[in-house]
Amino acid sequence: MQFAGSHILSVTQFERADVETIFSVADRMEPYAHRRRVTKVLDGAILGSMFFEPSTRTRVSFGSAFNLLGGEVRETTGFENSAIAKGESLYDTARVLSGYSDVIAMRHPAAGSVAEFAAASRVPVINGGDGANEHPSQALLDLYTIKKELAGRGRGIDGLRIAMVGDLRYGRTVHSLCKLLCLFDRVQVVLVSPQELRMPGEIVEDLRAAGHEALESEALEASIAHVDIVYSTRIQEERFSSQQEADLYRGRFRLNQTIYTEHCEPNTVIMHPLPRDSRETARELDDDLNDNPNLAIFRQTDNGVLVRMALFALVLDVADEVDAHARDVNWYTAGRFG
Amino acid sequence: MQFAGSHILSVTQFERADVETIFSVADRMEPYAHRRRVTKVLDGAILGSMFFEPSTRTRVSFGSAFNLLGGEVRETTGFENSAIAKGESLYDTARVLSGYSDVIAMRHPAAGSVAEFAAASRVPVINGGDGANEHPSQALLDLYTIKKELAGRGRGIDGLRIAMVGDLRYGRTVHSLCKLLCLFDRVQVVLVSPQELRMPGEIVEDLRAAGHEALESEALEASIAHVDIVYSTRIQEERFSSQQEADLYRGRFRLNQTIYTEHCEPNTVIMHPLPRDSRETARELDDDLNDNPNLAIFRQTDNGVLVRMALFALVLDVADEVDAHARDVNWYTAGRFG
Amino acid sequence: MQFAGSHILSVTQFERADVETIFSVADRMEPYAHRRRVTKVLDGAILGSMFFEPSTRTRVSFGSAFNLLGGEVRETTGFENSAIAKGESLYDTARVLSGYSDVIAMRHPAAGSVAEFAAASRVPVINGGDGANEHPSQALLDLYTIKKELAGRGRGIDGLRIAMVGDLRYGRTVHSLCKLLCLFDRVQVVLVSPQELRMPGEIVEDLRAAGHEALESEALEASIAHVDIVYSTRIQEERFSSQQEADLYRGRFRLNQTIYTEHCEPNTVIMHPLPRDSRETARELDDDLNDNPNLAIFRQTDNGVLVRMALFALVLDVADEVDAHARDVNWYTAGRFG
Repeated sequence: MQFAGSHILSVTQFERADVETIFSVADRMEPYAHRRRVTKVLDGAILGSMFFEPSTRTRVSFGSAFNLLGGEVRETTGFENSAIAKGESLYDTARVLSGYSDVIAMRHPAAGSVAEFAAASRVPVINGGDGANEHPSQALLDLYTIKKELAGRGRGIDGLRIAMVGDLRYGRTVHSLCKLLCLFDRVQVVLVSPQELRMPGEIVEDLRAAGHEALESEALEASIAHVDIVYSTRIQEERFSSQQEADLYRGRFRLNQTIYTEHCEPNTVIMHPLPRDSRETARELDDDLNDNPNLAIFRQTDNGVLVRMALFALVLDVADEVDAHARDVNWYTAGRFG
Repeated sequence: MQFAGSHILSVTQFERADVETIFSVADRMEPYAHRRRVTKVLDGAILGSMFFEPSTRTRVSFGSAFNLLGGEVRETTGFENSAIAKGESLYDTARVLSGYSDVIAMRHPAAGSVAEFAAASRVPVINGGDGANEHPSQALLDLYTIKKELAGRGRGIDGLRIAMVGDLRYGRTVHSLCKLLCLFDRVQVVLVSPQELRMPGEIVEDLRAAGHEALESEALEASIAHVDIVYSTRIQEERFSSQQEADLYRGRFRLNQTIYTEHCEPNTVIMHPLPRDSRETARELDDDLNDNPNLAIFRQTDNGVLVRMALFALVLDVADEVDAHARDVNWYTAGRFG
Repeated sequence: MQFAGSHILSVTQFERADVETIFSVADRMEPYAHRRRVTKVLDGAILGSMFFEPSTRTRVSFGSAFNLLGGEVRETTGFENSAIAKGESLYDTARVLSGYSDVIAMRHPAAGSVAEFAAASRVPVINGGDGANEHPSQALLDLYTIKKELAGRGRGIDGLRIAMVGDLRYGRTVHSLCKLLCLFDRVQVVLVSPQELRMPGEIVEDLRAAGHEALESEALEASIAHVDIVYSTRIQEERFSSQQEADLYRGRFRLNQTIYTEHCEPNTVIMHPLPRDSRETARELDDDLNDNPNLAIFRQTDNGVLVRMALFALVLDVADEVDAHARDVNWYTAGRFG
């Protein structure tokens, strides 16, 4: 695809080469995200961060990514007081707000709303999540993390062996990740979930149509025995009709260090889209994994900054100029990303 | 008036020459708002954006305008958690907050509150709306839009023919616009409203005292036949005692492309302070006007950025230095303001 | 202590030399806070402003301080929509959010929460208030104000005579100020409160163990007769079981210009952590003191910016480079800090 001036709305808009372009630019963002260098390539540019549904970490991640390229951020959070709530159309909202910034990152509770907004926007729009529908930067950061975690061991996305665990029915991140995996070769996916929360059939079919292996299972321990990645997910309790129904599934497929040691291959990478539940009966990943160097969950969120920097640089067409507007910095950084 | 260090509280503080100064500076802001150039003239300056009543677009417009001059923005939205709600006086709030920034843009639900705040502030305060009272930057952007829309056709504010349509009783924007028009010559104003929502008598008298024609009417179609501008407004439902009462008036004087074609002169400009209502029975301006090149409603909001940039530049006394701190930019801009 | 890379969590972490270092750096921040000069020493750095409990002025003060050093600010306010509310641990929240910024200023309603967060953070954390526990930058700005107010008259913190007045039981600021005073010599503290709202015994003992005089009193007028500073505080109504109980104490020990003139030594300085209550029956400091040049309450909040700039400069290890990245500015400043 042509990135300059384009909207980023769905993982389905990418071909393999596009994903590789994003990851290549993300790699080059590392010295800036790790604060060895500062760039001002987007000095004077404004991100409109329009979060009509709250999401602290996605919002801050987008905002920090834009700041790290030298740009400014104007934000809106919440919905109740918006003009949309007073009966304004998304068309009008988009026409107006797109006059205030150079690019927009938008989150909205209604599926399809971001695409509708983008159609009327005069600047590129990046989908930061539209309900149960899409959250492309999350899928990209997940796949980018897989690539980076495996790089040191001579393995890659082609030939990947991955177990996805938990609420595969409502978990938006695993749906999008599967769609991205369809762009690559020879992937083995083990889908571990309760019967009632199985991965939707059409996604399983997509995986198989792409030539991948897709196995479904209800047995955690056997399923994680021969994979490179265990991707655990939270029960999406807001999608259930009652707390009680969600509780039926919470805490199933709980991974801890003992199970990891007994069943996983050495250096199996553990991922999770976060937040993970810390309540005793609801945990997906136990705290005793926190010292496991293969727990990649915080490297995932760090990678999110890199991927979002790459998306901004690409849609604003400055990816090749980032280094030209840069300098080294010397403020205290010893603790960063430690 | 002397702009440097002054508060901008009311349209009544301006003489004609002041309005022309603001518009002249706004004109010079275009290359920056359209992103052909970036200026850092306010690099290091801080805007305190104090929105004790929410208003996404006004807040973001002020913030973006300040960013476009190179400054930073610190924001507050909402009232419930403010010290004012805990019993602090506006005097104290103003003394404290004005120590944190170089200029303040403030919105507050109570009429007169912004002026009270400004009296205690140690930095210039721009009124971003104080209840039913004043919203001077809105009136300025409306008049600036009129000037720009008519410029291409050899007409101007002097000699203007304008129809104001809708809720003229509670619509703050039309009140302020009329006050500004009193600074100019030979204006013809047609005031189209339900009987119950007529323009307040003292404003009609002001128009006439300024030598203008002011006609009142309940007939939309005849009233828009010989004007340069149709300025439509929303029913201010929050001012009515019930939803039912507001509904009586909603959707009256609805303009669509058919009425426009049959009744208006060619190139009659359509304006609206936004948001316009998109609900089927409540529309003031139909969606079929969206392709009409004379629909200026989004150029209005774009012009708001220019006018607010001009106000900031004037009160901080940097209007003549904007270009000296500027450079051209080359990030992707093809879609902007399209 | 070693400031670079350290958390600022409690006044108890400081020795006298540390406090003096902070004040010395704060002094050097004056030309920047007063807008005679602009520095970009933290150009490219990001402050994560995480206010899980709202506090407009503390939040804006931290943010402005960071902007004044050239850095950017990414903010979060409120708690309801946070991942913590969905069951995420503070450990996870800290690991994630500390990947988005170079330093964090955090406020949270639960005592101890900021320290728990800091233990997992990968960047320095400054405590912006954790419930009834600590708010070290407030205590520092109070002491810094005392130092500056007395400097012109050849007096200092050593040998200070101070009356603390009001709700000494629940008032976090006076507790912390007493702890800081224990680092200095020969202080006389008069503690004026209702019997039920006396200063906690262990703090009184700390003062005495430090060699200070600490007298308790219920008589305002005699207590303020021979002091350098009257430090008045608000009734912390949120700590009482009912509004009625809080009202019992509100408005006691009310200071006005008449009492000041009759009982205080000339030039006795009046301080208050703000907000002060402006409701007629609840005032601690009457409005007729507003013209008293010894009312230092707004100089206190101004000093807060200087102290927070100093803390940022120290933990990010740029205190000695601020001037090297600076230039003079010439935008309108006549009204600032007036």
